[in-house]
Amino acid sequence: MSDSTPTPAPRPWSQRFEGSLHPAIARFNASIGFDIRLLPYDLAGSLAHVQMLGACGILTPQEAEQIRRGLEQIRQEVEAGTFQPDPDAEDVHYAVEHRLVALVGEVGKKLHTGRSRNDQVATDLRLYLRDQIDRIRTSLWQLRGVLLHLAGQHIETILPGYTHLQRAQPVSLAHHLLAYEEMLWRDWQRLGRVREQVNVCPLGSGALAGTPLPIDRQLTAHLLGFERISANSLDAVSDRDYLVEFHAAASLILVHLSRLSEEMVLWASQEFRFVTLTDACATGSSLMPQKKNPDVPELVRGKAGRVFGHLQALLVTLKGLPLAYNKDLQEDKEGLFDTVDTLGSCLEAMTILLQEGIQFQPQRMAEAVGEDFSNATDVADYLVRRGIPFRTAHDLVGQIVRVCLAEGIVLRDLNLERWKQFHPAFEEDIFAAIDPQQVVAARLSTGGTGFAVVRQALQQAQARHEHPEQSDEPGES
Amino acid sequence: MSDSTPTPAPRPWSQRFEGSLHPAIARFNASIGFDIRLLPYDLAGSLAHVQMLGACGILTPQEAEQIRRGLEQIRQEVEAGTFQPDPDAEDVHYAVEHRLVALVGEVGKKLHTGRSRNDQVATDLRLYLRDQIDRIRTSLWQLRGVLLHLAGQHIETILPGYTHLQRAQPVSLAHHLLAYEEMLWRDWQRLGRVREQVNVCPLGSGALAGTPLPIDRQLTAHLLGFERISANSLDAVSDRDYLVEFHAAASLILVHLSRLSEEMVLWASQEFRFVTLTDACATGSSLMPQKKNPDVPELVRGKAGRVFGHLQALLVTLKGLPLAYNKDLQEDKEGLFDTVDTLGSCLEAMTILLQEGIQFQPQRMAEAVGEDFSNATDVADYLVRRGIPFRTAHDLVGQIVRVCLAEGIVLRDLNLERWKQFHPAFEEDIFAAIDPQQVVAARLSTGGTGFAVVRQALQQAQARHEHPEQSDEPGES
Amino acid sequence: MSDSTPTPAPRPWSQRFEGSLHPAIARFNASIGFDIRLLPYDLAGSLAHVQMLGACGILTPQEAEQIRRGLEQIRQEVEAGTFQPDPDAEDVHYAVEHRLVALVGEVGKKLHTGRSRNDQVATDLRLYLRDQIDRIRTSLWQLRGVLLHLAGQHIETILPGYTHLQRAQPVSLAHHLLAYEEMLWRDWQRLGRVREQVNVCPLGSGALAGTPLPIDRQLTAHLLGFERISANSLDAVSDRDYLVEFHAAASLILVHLSRLSEEMVLWASQEFRFVTLTDACATGSSLMPQKKNPDVPELVRGKAGRVFGHLQALLVTLKGLPLAYNKDLQEDKEGLFDTVDTLGSCLEAMTILLQEGIQFQPQRMAEAVGEDFSNATDVADYLVRRGIPFRTAHDLVGQIVRVCLAEGIVLRDLNLERWKQFHPAFEEDIFAAIDPQQVVAARLSTGGTGFAVVRQALQQAQARHEHPEQSDEPGES
Amino acid sequence: MSDSTPTPAPRPWSQRFEGSLHPAIARFNASIGFDIRLLPYDLAGSLAHVQMLGACGILTPQEAEQIRRGLEQIRQEVEAGTFQPDPDAEDVHYAVEHRLVALVGEVGKKLHTGRSRNDQVATDLRLYLRDQIDRIRTSLWQLRGVLLHLAGQHIETILPGYTHLQRAQPVSLAHHLLAYEEMLWRDWQRLGRVREQVNVCPLGSGALAGTPLPIDRQLTAHLLGFERISANSLDAVSDRDYLVEFHAAASLILVHLSRLSEEMVLWASQEFRFVTLTDACATGSSLMPQKKNPDVPELVRGKAGRVFGHLQALLVTLKGLPLAYNKDLQEDKEGLFDTVDTLGSCLEAMTILLQEGIQFQPQRMAEAVGEDFSNATDVADYLVRRGIPFRTAHDLVGQIVRVCLAEGIVLRDLNLERWKQFHPAFEEDIFAAIDPQQVVAARLSTGGTGFAVVRQALQQAQARHEHPEQSDEPGES
Repeated sequence: MSDSTPTPAPRPWSQRFEGSLHPAIARFNASIGFDIRLLPYDLAGSLAHVQMLGACGILTPQEAEQIRRGLEQIRQEVEAGTFQPDPDAEDVHYAVEHRLVALVGEVGKKLHTGRSRNDQVATDLRLYLRDQIDRIRTSLWQLRGVLLHLAGQHIETILPGYTHLQRAQPVSLAHHLLAYEEMLWRDWQRLGRVREQVNVCPLGSGALAGTPLPIDRQLTAHLLGFERISANSLDAVSDRDYLVEFHAAASLILVHLSRLSEEMVLWASQEFRFVTLTDACATGSSLMPQKKNPDVPELVRGKAGRVFGHLQALLVTLKGLPLAYNKDLQEDKEGLFDTVDTLGSCLEAMTILLQEGIQFQPQRMAEAVGEDFSNATDVADYLVRRGIPFRTAHDLVGQIVRVCLAEGIVLRDLNLERWKQFHPAFEEDIFAAIDPQQVVAARLSTGGTGFAVVRQALQQAQARHEHPEQSDEPGES
Repeated sequence: MSDSTPTPAPRPWSQRFEGSLHPAIARFNASIGFDIRLLPYDLAGSLAHVQMLGACGILTPQEAEQIRRGLEQIRQEVEAGTFQPDPDAEDVHYAVEHRLVALVGEVGKKLHTGRSRNDQVATDLRLYLRDQIDRIRTSLWQLRGVLLHLAGQHIETILPGYTHLQRAQPVSLAHHLLAYEEMLWRDWQRLGRVREQVNVCPLGSGALAGTPLPIDRQLTAHLLGFERISANSLDAVSDRDYLVEFHAAASLILVHLSRLSEEMVLWASQEFRFVTLTDACATGSSLMPQKKNPDVPELVRGKAGRVFGHLQALLVTLKGLPLAYNKDLQEDKEGLFDTVDTLGSCLEAMTILLQEGIQFQPQRMAEAVGEDFSNATDVADYLVRRGIPFRTAHDLVGQIVRVCLAEGIVLRDLNLERWKQFHPAFEEDIFAAIDPQQVVAARLSTGGTGFAVVRQALQQAQARHEHPEQSDEPGES
Repeated sequence: MSDSTPTPAPRPWSQRFEGSLHPAIARFNASIGFDIRLLPYDLAGSLAHVQMLGACGILTPQEAEQIRRGLEQIRQEVEAGTFQPDPDAEDVHYAVEHRLVALVGEVGKKLHTGRSRNDQVATDLRLYLRDQIDRIRTSLWQLRGVLLHLAGQHIETILPGYTHLQRAQPVSLAHHLLAYEEMLWRDWQRLGRVREQVNVCPLGSGALAGTPLPIDRQLTAHLLGFERISANSLDAVSDRDYLVEFHAAASLILVHLSRLSEEMVLWASQEFRFVTLTDACATGSSLMPQKKNPDVPELVRGKAGRVFGHLQALLVTLKGLPLAYNKDLQEDKEGLFDTVDTLGSCLEAMTILLQEGIQFQPQRMAEAVGEDFSNATDVADYLVRRGIPFRTAHDLVGQIVRVCLAEGIVLRDLNLERWKQFHPAFEEDIFAAIDPQQVVAARLSTGGTGFAVVRQALQQAQARHEHPEQSDEPGES
Repeated sequence: MSDSTPTPAPRPWSQRFEGSLHPAIARFNASIGFDIRLLPYDLAGSLAHVQMLGACGILTPQEAEQIRRGLEQIRQEVEAGTFQPDPDAEDVHYAVEHRLVALVGEVGKKLHTGRSRNDQVATDLRLYLRDQIDRIRTSLWQLRGVLLHLAGQHIETILPGYTHLQRAQPVSLAHHLLAYEEMLWRDWQRLGRVREQVNVCPLGSGALAGTPLPIDRQLTAHLLGFERISANSLDAVSDRDYLVEFHAAASLILVHLSRLSEEMVLWASQEFRFVTLTDACATGSSLMPQKKNPDVPELVRGKAGRVFGHLQALLVTLKGLPLAYNKDLQEDKEGLFDTVDTLGSCLEAMTILLQEGIQFQPQRMAEAVGEDFSNATDVADYLVRRGIPFRTAHDLVGQIVRVCLAEGIVLRDLNLERWKQFHPAFEEDIFAAIDPQQVVAARLSTGGTGFAVVRQALQQAQARHEHPEQSDEPGES
């Protein structure tokens, strides 16, 4: 950590200073190591800013054009991979300004007219995040598509439904998959709402107080595709609410993916065997030759904590900061970048896992349903339909289950005579009523697992998947 | 923690069981100690449910009416404070059902027809939270009103604006206060969006799979004022996304209040003296007779961590849970209740603090503005308007500041001759340009601190404060 | 939240103040609602303090005795349940002082000589926590005892060992249980180290700067059983490191309990069936008559998030506080109390669960071991012992497993001829080498699952369990 | 994120598999991008392992020597910067094994005999962290040295001491600085305790169950400098308690540094002016030419959240994992590496800041002390020494302060006559008693701010700083 070559770092804001910055401190303060990721957005922001300055007469048309050409050239250098940020530039903003002055000379020193790094970096962050949200929503959309495709294949595949990880009532596999599609659909919509909060332009707020120069903030915002401009300059340069909203939405996506992952890990175990792992997504052991491990869902599950941690870190950093900008806010970026990367890779990995990495085992699922008492509620409902109060029926079925357990049998093993001994209301149709396929088919309440309502639910989910733009209308939810 | 009287707890679901529950475990599992807070919502849910069962013919009109009367009687007992939950009831739901059966007899055992505690508690939670959000939004609205009132009194009061807690540029006190109003306005809107997510009815999802009984979920939802019904029963009973969204929104409110609190603590210090504390909100010391402490903002600042902690706890609890309901979810309540209470009391306390607890000291603020170099940017902007590139102007002013610091003077102490020595572009009007009042007045960019634009911003904020309903339209943000 | 009877609250520090405290703010500031839990410790601290004041001549022997009697009387009132804190007392400290003055008159006003609430509450907290740590360690010790008892019964019970929730290598059930005992043993020791940090006396640090009165801090510390006194008064009144250490240790205990809980939930599933739930710790469903749910481990698992949240809340509250005491620190208590309660109830519940709530199913475990390839590593090790490089052996066994999978057989189904086709080094003794019981028995490396080393490990664990005092020596770990 | 060249990744554990791993999943699973940081520790572990295998006769002396030479050659390649990990190696362990086999041929395939990646990575992590803790403790020691040096210069420099950020009682600047030294001393000791938990060898635990090969775990542990070996193989491969302990200790260090940072930010403000910033550690503004910002303490304060986030992420990842190793644990590394880096850079930056970046302003501090009522407690203590009950004295001084405030004077402005009007016990010596220098000097209780006790405290702190090895004895705290 020591510094063998303590060459003083030059500083763009150095005229008030006489001494030089300690080189270790220059390194400590610098953000160029990570904010370089904002480069395309910084260039876009500067291009819009200079166009506005020209339009408002703050720069002459010639000046604006010269600067524009310089920025465009930097953009090409970036695309060509030849852009090398000045090693002394402490951040992406100075890296661009330095290069611009090198390219276009003195006029480049007019770029920073009427703005500050405080409103500039807030603008960069919002442009970056807007783009990333669009990419993540596309990934969510793709994963939802895979779930819908699988659901379409498995409407009448039944498996045990669980509460408390105990078999509860049998359900359609499509219904199970659609539960996750429903979560991800909420996530997709939620990110749409976050995007609206992101899509607000702070440029023109200056360091904290606005500017006396006759800028046109609406024009810059329009050029950058922002829907609105921020209303208060002190707030605008220190507001990171949208980052918190994004991290909260990201945390929920990871909650949903980690729940799905938990199930895939369970289902791939030798005990469940509801899925088998293909070779496309499983790995082995360095020691145990037989192992085939569900690394993907384990890793996704493990990555949830990481995103929760970034959310927490952001809240901690923001808490108690006085107005307006404070350097603490520089800490907003690395966590954000990592959250974006983590979300992207987890969504991609889960999509591949569902597409190529697992194979459902309907036969094994059906066997599991046959082994248990998950049709017991239907016996109670059978009695309810014959006028027995639910609580009374529930008590009676509890006793029947106890008797069966003692005898080592399940409900379908009782003959009609024994049913009638338990309660005279039982008739021949009790056998149909407790058939697992029938048990599932009968749950036709809206949102239930009955095949007919699942089929409807799938159609509705497919419709919103095919026409996402209709769902993104203002006020939609 | 030991249990001296191990009387077995009775259990409503006991017919499958032979042995009795260990009394310490009964206590460990029970939620009645805290979920009793949901009682009014549980009754409302049951009333709607039974009305629906009657309307659908699952209960006879007479049965439905008998149960309704029983529930109404319990509601009156609750209001009269005479309702005593059965000490053996493990939760609020059983407490109600037990009392109902005691009041109306056997027919009471039909109440739980076609539902489960899983969808019931999800419904209770949503009804509770919908109410609380409405209360919290009202508190936010009141606090915003106080900020607007104060802003109206202080448009031309100027004080130093800070970045990095260093004086940066002078600002209007109204502009400063409106920055907080802007944050709280976002909070108010955000809670409106959370409310839409809360306002979805899960009732009728059963334990996890729906029900074979011919219920009408839309009717129940309508009776309870819900806007929509949930789409997937497995998701509906295990979804707590809306609680995470609420906690994230609550965390942001606490971020904003803790930032304002940090400033009030700073401003009340002997060093700042921008506010004085009245006796209404300050406390003293048990030891030091002279002390007058800003307890309120300190405590609000301290409570931020508490709400962040509840957010984190909730995410941790949800992470990795397989479908559908798991008992872990019982842990969703106490944190929520505490977050609701904390938000309510912090908003109330901050409202009182601003109304009665502090007095702004405009004289002291004005003195502070006069002591510093916070008008230095205006010198640079002065040169920019005369054609000097901004970066060049910035460098020159940096040198001027250095000279002044060495001489122990501020900018207004330079005479015109000296100004001209620095740069020939300076003219007599430089003195007006650096007058603090003028410096503030000139920042007329939209969202800036210029008095005229602050006045406009205040009017807009007042308008949205007076007509909140217009802001709550779908799609508004 | 409004206050209908705005009677001004009196205040003990009121002579500097003229106006009265707003009643809602009085409520907001008050801690008496929760810090009353510190009452016995506050009394103990005051008793030691007054004895010291007498011994140092700051009080006369008569004064000290009068105050002592008054405090003793309060202690008896507390024990008799007749102590009623003054409703206007904002905290436990004033509640005691008020009552004291009421009991003994003017001399009671000398109690607070030479101390402040700042060092007083820090002392109370440390006394409280020291006691609670002792109670929690006892609970940990009891739970470890149950694990050791069960391990003693199951040394030769074998079950599949898992990595990635895939069967990996068979292990002794005792070895599995001892893994948890090892974690809880670390917890027990860790709490011992935390206790040393807690056991430091801050009393006598005053508000922040010490006192000019000739107090004897060592005497007070000695009377209260503290091992050391704090070294710096500014630090002493604002230090909450020991609370963070305690919460970190508590979080780890919950991590361990939630891991054990996860396994109990898995093992109780119909798919695993490694344990059955007795009626003592399981609950049923309000809807599904057959359900028997493992509520205890689910709830323990869910409570982990709660404790993590309190840890986070505490760190957030402490972060960035300037010296010395700030009111934010009042937020240190409620989370602590809840963590202590949560730990206590979770440890008790898990102890009961293991003692009375589950029954291991060795038969089912043995069946599981027979079904799989968890002896594959032993084939590779067989070859290694015959000189084949491990990586080569690992590759070969991988191929053998693939062949078996294709044929639907397991390794024991191969005859010697086929073994020899795979590699000539295989001999008749391969069959013994892959027998599950032998596979487990052979892993005799220290800390491994071989029965003989497990038996040794159990003895060592029992020895440290029987003589905990020997483990608590300074420097022990 | 798409993959244009889907070349299948080879896999070392591939003989059980037929199909190839999806390239995007190979990337998702791979840890080589970050665990390469463990390379020196992985080599050290392998060297010890192979030496042990030779000593135990599991390898021949020739085999062991061949492998040793190969590993040494890799170590030289690493030092020379020529080591290129195989791009297909998924982690650092395979990268080493691949290179070894390339260098020494078939015998290299014997390296992995008797171990697994599970115990190997646990060993690497512990070796890495042990080293890092030593480095961080050295940094803590250096920072403490700077604090002690500054304290030595400022024993009789007095400044206002604060509670609630209100002036409370004057204190010695040395006392204030020693409060931070006390915190960092606890941190230094705490890391010593964490180091003991880290310094335990898991190697030889195999994948989860130990090994049937006759290894000597004590020998490997000894060669690697570990103090103990782990006791249970299932626990050893999944234990990450020591990482949680380290993160908790790191969080506390950041709490302390952020508290110091908060004060530096406050003290550098124009309102406090207790320190001035030199040019070595301050930066300016891109817009405002006069700005000089305390970036270092702001950034340190901001980084606290980051470390808290990593602590939280780790707990979340561990929570609820069944035994033994799960892939989720791969997420333990990146947060750890970032915490180590963050701690290192923050400690270095704060050390430089205190050494070169700030200059105390004793004159300004003294002025501040003179302006206020921070000597009011001493008036009360004056009366106590004359027999007035403390509470009565406190009340009276409160009234005196109120009178002074109304008249706009401070206590020293009262003449003796007025003092006597307040209470006849006041004599001429009241003026000495309230002189700020005397007020500080008189607080001679142990740990107080009296100059004489501060001088003693400094000597003790210097002694433990000079002889850290004596403080690291077992049992010391």
